[in-house]
Amino acid sequence: MFKLQSLRVRLKNELKRFAWTTQIIGENISVQDNEIQEEYRFPYIWLRDNCQCSECFHTPSKSRIINAEHFDFDIKPQEIEVLESRLKVKWSDNHLSYFTISWLKNHRFSSKHQKYWLHNVYRPCPQPWRANEFSRILQRFNYNDVLKREDTLLSWLESLAIWGVALIKDAGVKENTLLGLCNRVAFVKHTQYGNIFGVKAKPGTSNVAYLSGPLQLHTDLPYYEYKPGVLMLHCLIQASENGGENQLSDGLAVCTDLKQNFPNDYKILANTPVDWSDIVEEDNKQYYSLYRAPVISENPNGDLVRINFSQPQRDSHFNIPLEQIIPWYKAYKRLVQTLHNPKYKVFHRLKQGDILTFDNLRLPHGRSSYDGERYLQGCYMDWDHVYSKMRILKTIAQNNQS
Amino acid sequence: MFKLQSLRVRLKNELKRFAWTTQIIGENISVQDNEIQEEYRFPYIWLRDNCQCSECFHTPSKSRIINAEHFDFDIKPQEIEVLESRLKVKWSDNHLSYFTISWLKNHRFSSKHQKYWLHNVYRPCPQPWRANEFSRILQRFNYNDVLKREDTLLSWLESLAIWGVALIKDAGVKENTLLGLCNRVAFVKHTQYGNIFGVKAKPGTSNVAYLSGPLQLHTDLPYYEYKPGVLMLHCLIQASENGGENQLSDGLAVCTDLKQNFPNDYKILANTPVDWSDIVEEDNKQYYSLYRAPVISENPNGDLVRINFSQPQRDSHFNIPLEQIIPWYKAYKRLVQTLHNPKYKVFHRLKQGDILTFDNLRLPHGRSSYDGERYLQGCYMDWDHVYSKMRILKTIAQNNQS
Repeated sequence: MFKLQSLRVRLKNELKRFAWTTQIIGENISVQDNEIQEEYRFPYIWLRDNCQCSECFHTPSKSRIINAEHFDFDIKPQEIEVLESRLKVKWSDNHLSYFTISWLKNHRFSSKHQKYWLHNVYRPCPQPWRANEFSRILQRFNYNDVLKREDTLLSWLESLAIWGVALIKDAGVKENTLLGLCNRVAFVKHTQYGNIFGVKAKPGTSNVAYLSGPLQLHTDLPYYEYKPGVLMLHCLIQASENGGENQLSDGLAVCTDLKQNFPNDYKILANTPVDWSDIVEEDNKQYYSLYRAPVISENPNGDLVRINFSQPQRDSHFNIPLEQIIPWYKAYKRLVQTLHNPKYKVFHRLKQGDILTFDNLRLPHGRSSYDGERYLQGCYMDWDHVYSKMRILKTIAQNNQS
Repeated sequence: MFKLQSLRVRLKNELKRFAWTTQIIGENISVQDNEIQEEYRFPYIWLRDNCQCSECFHTPSKSRIINAEHFDFDIKPQEIEVLESRLKVKWSDNHLSYFTISWLKNHRFSSKHQKYWLHNVYRPCPQPWRANEFSRILQRFNYNDVLKREDTLLSWLESLAIWGVALIKDAGVKENTLLGLCNRVAFVKHTQYGNIFGVKAKPGTSNVAYLSGPLQLHTDLPYYEYKPGVLMLHCLIQASENGGENQLSDGLAVCTDLKQNFPNDYKILANTPVDWSDIVEEDNKQYYSLYRAPVISENPNGDLVRINFSQPQRDSHFNIPLEQIIPWYKAYKRLVQTLHNPKYKVFHRLKQGDILTFDNLRLPHGRSSYDGERYLQGCYMDWDHVYSKMRILKTIAQNNQS
């Protein structure tokens, strides 16, 4: 009985040797998993470029150290074989590379696998929402949990990335609480308005956000090429009477629907550069910011990456040919009507101790007028660092699971 | 005699009344300068949108305060006339707008005027340079002059914007000098590496820039969507032996020439997203940065806005279809060869007290290996704030002239 078992184990190991085979197909090395009849193909130039040996790859920094200038882009494999779950390649210059099968599978060029990797590692896929879905999609997170629990922190950031808005509750009413929150994620984005700014009525202001009247829908700082990504508003004092509600419209939903229903208007808004500007003095420093970008900015895949919307900061200079002006205003009218349509626009009244967090690249936001005292503090973070933190938290969560 | 002169003045004033006339042409208001036979045409929707009255425009903040939601995009003029060098428009809702002729001329929709405005107010036009021009284009500025004189400060920033590189001399060898320099312009860009970072050999580093070997051409932080714009390197200690030269290649020149001579390779590099990544621990915080962007990033006009080049930070994950991999490497090979070609690549050895300032979005840079001690400090600024400062300085200079 014992002998039979031992024979079985040996046989299984022997078979494993043949479970993976490899061959050259064109300019690729093909690796086949014969057990499940799967084939993975890797261009050899890519394999050589990603050799994991210590001459080519610096493990502590997880970085390629191959010198591009002296790299042989025309290298070819001399010998290939799969040995003990590793692909071994001997190159035409006798250099040796080894790739574990699991590394190869993790880097396979299948569109399904790449999509999975991009959504799970790179950035989650944002989901549009309309006003009737707002109460469902607005997730609430307890401030202390966000500070103390990694899973709550990750859930908050994911919610923010997917829906563009999330609410933190019970943060108290201490000034500068936001700085601690930013520090929990990464660090604050400094702008000409400092690290943290107060939003309350200021007499003689040079910024329309500091008036107590209604603040119409806008996105902040469209006049920056590096426009702040995440905006956090901490409610320290809410107006005691009615009023002072925050207003939000999901630019992603609006753009998705415009693109489908009024493709010509959408195209005009996505292709016409607008001059966004701001001239201001803060802390004895003068700033004259100016950035040219369409109202709707897409990436080459046609995904929305940024919506620029701000009546006060749309410059009177409009540097496009005369004949494009009237069509642009017609398209802009459509956008304005859609953004303000109750199908999209929601009102939300913050309570003291609430922190409203949302995507300033995506959500035009405003505020109803109010009477009496009201005091919010605001600050920004860049998406670069928010996504970075999400990746770190996900890696920790995955390591804990396995 | 006195009477005749007075009559002449009256006649001249009388004629001026008729020097400017106005009429409606299609959906535009046309304003003619009859003296020089020039005509300027303004769509009326644009004029209404830019009404300068106190209901529509908040002068202290130089901002439009028209509420977009309630704006009548279909408004029409009822009456128009030019009165005392101002265009007066009475709108269909009886609202009145006045525009001075000089304001109108400053906003005219002529492509020549717009081009002038964009180059003079928005951003100067960058000029490519090749290695044989380097000694001519590398302008030197005295550190104290930069700190004390507005004209030197402006010249430095303009040189940086146009050529992508400029040298500040005699800054001394005190640590953190760069922070004062940033403060002179606007403020430092904070990254995961802090506000200011040291560049010297560090044992057990997790960043290849902190080794003393050669540092191949690269751009910093390609894994940020908000990649640092201006990089400043302050030489505190230069290696006493040979070595430690900075290396620079003008990405704008390289891309301009590639686009002309190898348009297919250029197109591949400009259209293929690459995964740039960095996993690092700094100050007890972990970062996992990842950004997808082509090696060559263009704006919709086809102008280079950013070159991403970094062997260590090009991720082994390459999320594009298999069949695009080999063509991409062929194009990349061309770029690598061009960047390192002595036609483009220059060596410059900093002296102690020098500050090398350059455009990290444009200039791949590296360093020759060195022996012994060498210590540089580096920090970043965003172009948003550098351009802002240039506009302020230009405005001051123009006001001083007039």
